[in-house]
Amino acid sequence: MIGVGLIGSGFMGKCHAMAWNAVHLAFGDTPAIRLVHLGEANADLAERRAGEFGFAKASGDWRAVIADPEIDVVSLTTPNQFHPEMAVAALETGKHLWCEKPMAPSFAEAQAMADAARKSGKVAVLGYNYIQSPAIRHIRTLLDEGVIGTVNHLRIEMDEDFMADPDAPFFWKHEAASGYGALDDFAVHPLSLIQNLFGRVASVMCDMARPYPDRQTDSGSRRPVETYDIASSLIHLENGVSGTLLVNRSAWGRKGRIALQIFGSKGSILFDQERFNEVQLYVTSDRPTEQGYRTILSGPPHEPYGRFIPAPGHGLGFNDLKTIECHELIAAIEGRPANVIGFDEGLEIERTVHAMARSFEERRWVEVRG
Amino acid sequence: MIGVGLIGSGFMGKCHAMAWNAVHLAFGDTPAIRLVHLGEANADLAERRAGEFGFAKASGDWRAVIADPEIDVVSLTTPNQFHPEMAVAALETGKHLWCEKPMAPSFAEAQAMADAARKSGKVAVLGYNYIQSPAIRHIRTLLDEGVIGTVNHLRIEMDEDFMADPDAPFFWKHEAASGYGALDDFAVHPLSLIQNLFGRVASVMCDMARPYPDRQTDSGSRRPVETYDIASSLIHLENGVSGTLLVNRSAWGRKGRIALQIFGSKGSILFDQERFNEVQLYVTSDRPTEQGYRTILSGPPHEPYGRFIPAPGHGLGFNDLKTIECHELIAAIEGRPANVIGFDEGLEIERTVHAMARSFEERRWVEVRG
Amino acid sequence: MIGVGLIGSGFMGKCHAMAWNAVHLAFGDTPAIRLVHLGEANADLAERRAGEFGFAKASGDWRAVIADPEIDVVSLTTPNQFHPEMAVAALETGKHLWCEKPMAPSFAEAQAMADAARKSGKVAVLGYNYIQSPAIRHIRTLLDEGVIGTVNHLRIEMDEDFMADPDAPFFWKHEAASGYGALDDFAVHPLSLIQNLFGRVASVMCDMARPYPDRQTDSGSRRPVETYDIASSLIHLENGVSGTLLVNRSAWGRKGRIALQIFGSKGSILFDQERFNEVQLYVTSDRPTEQGYRTILSGPPHEPYGRFIPAPGHGLGFNDLKTIECHELIAAIEGRPANVIGFDEGLEIERTVHAMARSFEERRWVEVRG
Amino acid sequence: MIGVGLIGSGFMGKCHAMAWNAVHLAFGDTPAIRLVHLGEANADLAERRAGEFGFAKASGDWRAVIADPEIDVVSLTTPNQFHPEMAVAALETGKHLWCEKPMAPSFAEAQAMADAARKSGKVAVLGYNYIQSPAIRHIRTLLDEGVIGTVNHLRIEMDEDFMADPDAPFFWKHEAASGYGALDDFAVHPLSLIQNLFGRVASVMCDMARPYPDRQTDSGSRRPVETYDIASSLIHLENGVSGTLLVNRSAWGRKGRIALQIFGSKGSILFDQERFNEVQLYVTSDRPTEQGYRTILSGPPHEPYGRFIPAPGHGLGFNDLKTIECHELIAAIEGRPANVIGFDEGLEIERTVHAMARSFEERRWVEVRG
Repeated sequence: MIGVGLIGSGFMGKCHAMAWNAVHLAFGDTPAIRLVHLGEANADLAERRAGEFGFAKASGDWRAVIADPEIDVVSLTTPNQFHPEMAVAALETGKHLWCEKPMAPSFAEAQAMADAARKSGKVAVLGYNYIQSPAIRHIRTLLDEGVIGTVNHLRIEMDEDFMADPDAPFFWKHEAASGYGALDDFAVHPLSLIQNLFGRVASVMCDMARPYPDRQTDSGSRRPVETYDIASSLIHLENGVSGTLLVNRSAWGRKGRIALQIFGSKGSILFDQERFNEVQLYVTSDRPTEQGYRTILSGPPHEPYGRFIPAPGHGLGFNDLKTIECHELIAAIEGRPANVIGFDEGLEIERTVHAMARSFEERRWVEVRG
Repeated sequence: MIGVGLIGSGFMGKCHAMAWNAVHLAFGDTPAIRLVHLGEANADLAERRAGEFGFAKASGDWRAVIADPEIDVVSLTTPNQFHPEMAVAALETGKHLWCEKPMAPSFAEAQAMADAARKSGKVAVLGYNYIQSPAIRHIRTLLDEGVIGTVNHLRIEMDEDFMADPDAPFFWKHEAASGYGALDDFAVHPLSLIQNLFGRVASVMCDMARPYPDRQTDSGSRRPVETYDIASSLIHLENGVSGTLLVNRSAWGRKGRIALQIFGSKGSILFDQERFNEVQLYVTSDRPTEQGYRTILSGPPHEPYGRFIPAPGHGLGFNDLKTIECHELIAAIEGRPANVIGFDEGLEIERTVHAMARSFEERRWVEVRG
Repeated sequence: MIGVGLIGSGFMGKCHAMAWNAVHLAFGDTPAIRLVHLGEANADLAERRAGEFGFAKASGDWRAVIADPEIDVVSLTTPNQFHPEMAVAALETGKHLWCEKPMAPSFAEAQAMADAARKSGKVAVLGYNYIQSPAIRHIRTLLDEGVIGTVNHLRIEMDEDFMADPDAPFFWKHEAASGYGALDDFAVHPLSLIQNLFGRVASVMCDMARPYPDRQTDSGSRRPVETYDIASSLIHLENGVSGTLLVNRSAWGRKGRIALQIFGSKGSILFDQERFNEVQLYVTSDRPTEQGYRTILSGPPHEPYGRFIPAPGHGLGFNDLKTIECHELIAAIEGRPANVIGFDEGLEIERTVHAMARSFEERRWVEVRG
Repeated sequence: MIGVGLIGSGFMGKCHAMAWNAVHLAFGDTPAIRLVHLGEANADLAERRAGEFGFAKASGDWRAVIADPEIDVVSLTTPNQFHPEMAVAALETGKHLWCEKPMAPSFAEAQAMADAARKSGKVAVLGYNYIQSPAIRHIRTLLDEGVIGTVNHLRIEMDEDFMADPDAPFFWKHEAASGYGALDDFAVHPLSLIQNLFGRVASVMCDMARPYPDRQTDSGSRRPVETYDIASSLIHLENGVSGTLLVNRSAWGRKGRIALQIFGSKGSILFDQERFNEVQLYVTSDRPTEQGYRTILSGPPHEPYGRFIPAPGHGLGFNDLKTIECHELIAAIEGRPANVIGFDEGLEIERTVHAMARSFEERRWVEVRG
C-alpha cells in the first residue's frame, strides 16, 4: 500500500492524480495506491479538489500534507517558485518526492534540492514525462543495440504556439522573474530526452530571440517583454556527438512538437511528439532499392504499451505517459531499476539551461561544467 | 453515486474498469462511481480480478452481480455468445447496461436484446468507442454546419493485420460459428461511424474473400477456414449518399486503421483512426491558390479533449475514448442528451451486417430493411 | 532516325511533342528523332503549333500527315471520337502509332482499331503513362520477387476534383455521348495499372453515382447531367485476387490521386500518384519490433530514374513519365521488349469498362469476357 | 534566335542541355534556341556529347566555344576550379553567362568574376535552381502579401546521405583543397533561398563536424578527412529575423531534403524539397477549431506550373526547375525582370559561407560584411 499526498491541484496536479488513480489498474503489479491527502492554497479549494480527485483528506496548509504519517510519497505540482521549500521539507520529513519540472527558479535552489534528496536517501524524481513513451524507450533500445551504428549527430526541436499571438496581453511569463523564457519552459524537455538517450551536454552556444518586443498591459499601455520565446543552441555532448537544440514557444501551427533527428553511421531515427505513437527508422541493412524511413507504430512489443492496450496501433495518450512515469517512480521507491530523471540528473538539466543563457549573454561557447 | 457491476474481465473488461475508474476524475461533473461487484467464470478468477481492478465484491456467478442491489449499471464484456441471456437478465432486473459489441451471434437474439431494452425503460448502450473521439465529434460538427456543403459520397475502410499471418494456426475465429468474419469483427465499427455521422444504410452489395483458404491445426493437419477476413461492400445510405465500406483483418501493415473519406459539394474530410488526434479538412472557401487539406490537431476547442489535457496537440489515447464513452453513458443514465449507440441503433448495425452477408451469398443488391 | 508526325496539338499533343523532343537527350540510346509533320483542324493553327513545337511541316488535313513518307510513327492526340478513323488509316498506311487513351467511344470501334493493328504488323501503343513511373516499375519488381509473398487483395482509387464544383456549367463531358463519365475518364488508368501489375480482370460489380443531377447551361436553365462522376466497383482478377476499383472526378481536394493498396501474405505495398516518387513497403521479414511502412524515395537504382537525375530523392515530374513512355514505344518499334499497353491490352481495358457499365445497369456481377 | 554554347557535359551539363532543349516548347514565348557549340576536355568526348546532346559543333578547346560568333550565351558546367578563368573570358568576349554554383574556390576569384560581370554589362547568372519551383515562388508571394504576418524566425536544413557511408573511400571531396565541405556543397543552396525570400545574412555563428575522421584510401591505409560533412549555424538576417541553417551531407535517409520552417506573427510555412510540389501553410485567419497546416499541391495557379501541365497535383520534376531557371535567364537576357541569382547576389552567398567558416575557426559570431 502506497499513501499519496498531492500539493497543488492545477493542470499538473490533475495529471498526477489521474496517474496515481490509474497506475494500479493499468499495470496490475503495483501495491494498492491510497490517495490520502491533498494540499492547496486554502482549505476550501483543497476540500473541493480532494472531492473531485478522490483524496481522503484536504488541507489549506501544505505542511499538514507533508506531516501526514499515512503518506509515503508527495506529488509536488505547485508553481516553480514553491518547489525548493516544499521539496526540501518533504524530503527531510522522510517522504519520497515526485516533483514537477522545472526544479527551481535559481540554480542554487535546485542544488539545495538535489543535496536534500541525496541526504534523505529518499526517491526524488522530476516530472519529465516525454522520456516515458514506448516510442522513446524503443529508440533507446535501438541505439543500445547499435541498429543505426554509432551516432554522430543530433537535432532536437521543441515548438508550440501558446505565446505566438502578438495581441495576447503581457503576463507573468513575460517577466524576467519567471526565468529566461523558452529555455525554462521548453529546453528542459529536449534536454531530458538527450540525457536519457545520450548522456550529458558538454558545451553550448546559444542564441535567443524575442519575436514580440512588447505587449499590451491591462492598463492599455505597452510593456517590454523581458523573456525570450525562442532559443537556438549549438551543442556538444560529453560523448562527442554534436548537434542543435532549438525551441520556440511562439511557433504558430506547432502544438506539441518535439522533433528528434538522430544520425548514425548505419542509419537514422526520426520522432515527433505530436505523433508520439510513431518512430521513423532508416537502416542501411535494408536492400538499397528498398531503403526508406519506416513508420513504426507503437504496439505491445514496445514496453509498456501492452499494459494499456493489447492491440498495436491503437494509440496511447499524453496522460498514459504520466501513468507510466508514476509506475517508474514506484519501481524506484521499491528499489528496482527505474527509468526516471532523479534530482541529480535534473540538476544537470538546470545546469545546461543556465550555461545556455550565459552563452547567449556573453556571445560565446560555454562549458556546462566549466 | 453510481454502483457498477462488471461481468467479464478480459481486454474489454479491463477497458471498462479503467474507464469507470477514470471518468469522475477526468470530467469532474459525474456522480461518484463505486466499483461494486465483478463477475467471472469462476470465483477464484473473479476474486483475483476484483482485487486488480478495485471492485469491492467478486462472484463466480454472473447472476449474483446482476442481482446485487448496490449496482445501478452493468458492464457486460463477456464473449458475444453470452450477451443475449446476460443482457436480457440485467435489463429485466432493472439495471442499466453497457454491453460490448457485437450485440449477439444471431440477429434474432440481437432483436430480443433490443426488445428487452425497450421494455425495461433502462439505458442500454453498446461499446462503439470510435464515435467518441474529439476528431469524429468535430467532423460531425463540420458536417452539421455545412462546412463541406452537401455530402454526396463516402468511403470508409477498416483494416488490421492480426489475421494476416498465413502460418498462424486455425482458431475459433476461423469457424463459421464465430460469425461471418471481418463483417462481425470490423464492419460494425465503420457502420457505427456511418450511423453516427450520416444515418442508416439503405442497401448493400457485398463481396467477401478468404486470403488463406485453410490453416494448420494443433494436430498438424490443415483445416478449411470458414470465415472471411475480407469484406468489400458498395452501399447506399437512406439519405441518398452512395459509398463503399471495405474491411480487411488480414491487411499486413495496418494496425488500427479506420479511414474515412467524406466528399461534399464544398469540400471534403479525411480521417484515419491510426492518427485519431487529427482531422484533414479541405474547403473551397479557402483562396484557390491556398486550397489544400488542413491537418487539424485535436485540442481543447474540440470537446471533450480539454477534460483530459488543457494543451492542444498532446494527444488522447485509445483508453480515453472509452472514458468519454462512459461519460456519455452516464449522461444517458441521468436523462441528458448523449452521444451513444443504443440497442435500437445497434440493432440496425447488426441488420446491415446480415444484409451484407446475404448480398454476398446471393450475389445481388440487398435492401437492409427489405 | 525516327520521323514523327503529330495529329492534335492540345494538352496531350504538347505532352507528346515534349516527350519526342526530350527522349533522345534523356536516354542517349535512341535513334535521332525528327519532328516532321504536325496536323491540326486547320492550316493556320497547324502552322502556328508546328512553329511552337518545332515540327518542320504543318497541315490542316490529318491525311497529309499520315501520307507523309518521312514519317515513321504517328502521335495521335485528337479527341476520342476521331481515333478510330485516324488510327486505322495510319496503321493501314504502314505507320507505327502512339494513340492517346481512351481508345474509342464504342467497344466495336476499339475492336476495329485493335484488328487493324494486328493486321498491320505495326506497333500500336496507347498513352497509359502511369505504368511508367520508376515507382510503379519497382512495385512490379517487388511483386515478381515475392517480396510481399502471394498477393491476395487489392484496392485502387483514382480521384480528382475537376468536376467537383456544382456551380460549374454543363459541358460536353456531362452528355451521354461522351461516354459513361468517370469510367472512361479515370477507371481506364487504374485498369492499366492492374493489367500491368496483375493481369486481367475477370468479373465486376459496379455502382455509379451522379453527385450533381443537373447543371446550369449557357442559357441559364438547368440541364440534367447524363454521365456519372463516381464509379465504385468490386472486382475479381483472373488470377483469383479480389479487390475494389473506385473512381471519382468530383472529389474535392484530390488533384491527381491514384492510390494503390496491395496486400500479400508477407507484406503490403502502398502508392499514391500525387507523390509518385515514393513507394510504401511493409514486409514481415523485418524484425517485429521494427515493422512499419517504409517510404522509399525513387532514385537511380529504380530504372529509369537515373537517366534523368543521378541523385536520389530529387524527383521526376509528370512529363518525364511521358518521355519514358516514348522511350518504351521506341523499344517496341525496334523490336525489343517494351513496357507498353498495346492495342490488344488496351482493348481489354475497354472491355472491362463496358462490363462495369453493364453491371451497373443490370445491378449484377458481370463476367468481363462473358 | 538564341545561340547556346555549353562547356562541360557531365551531370549539370546534361541538365543545361535538357533545359535549353525544352524551354521553347514548354513556355512558347521564347526566341528559338539553337544548340551551337559544345566544349569538352578533348575533341573526342566533345564530339560524342555534341551528338548526344544535339549541338551542331564540338571542340576540345573551351576557348573555341567562347569565341564562336554564333553563340549568345555560354552554359558553364565545368568543375568549380575552372569557373574563374572561363567565366571572365566568356564575359569579356561579350557572351551572357549561365554558370553553375558554387562560383569559385576562393572568395577573391568569385569577386573577380562578379567584377567582370559588372564590367561586361552582360547577364551573368548562377545555377541556383531551388528558388525556381512554383512552391518556393508561391511562398514568396505569401510572404509579400503578409499572409503569415511579419516573419520573426526561420529554420532551414539541407541534408543528403551521399557521404554517409563510413566505408566509402577517401576522395577529392575529403581534401581541404575542395573547400570546407558541407558549406560549399550544401549551405549555398539554403542561402540562395534565404536571399531570394528574405534578403541577406548579417551575422553567423557556425559549428562544423566530421562524422568520420578518416577514411580508407586506394592503397588500403587510412587518411584523415580534411572537410566537414556537417555544418550548423545560428544566423541573423539583415532584416532582423533570427534563425538557424543546418546542413549535413552524411545524413542517412535524407536524399534531397531542404526543409524550411518560416514563422510569422499570423501563421507559418513549411516546405521540404523532397516533396517540392507541396507547401504547408498555417494561418490564424482560419477559424480556431479548423486551424491546421494545409498541404497545398502545386498547380496551374502557381506560376509557371501551368506551362508544363494544365492539371494540378500532377507534379513537376527536378529537371523542370532547370527549365524554369533557363526561362528566367532568357528573360534577363531580354531585359525583363527575372527571378535569378546574379553574380553580385551569388557573391553574397560566397561571402556568407566564408564568414561561417571563419566563425567556426574562431569560435565566435562573425559579421558577414565585417
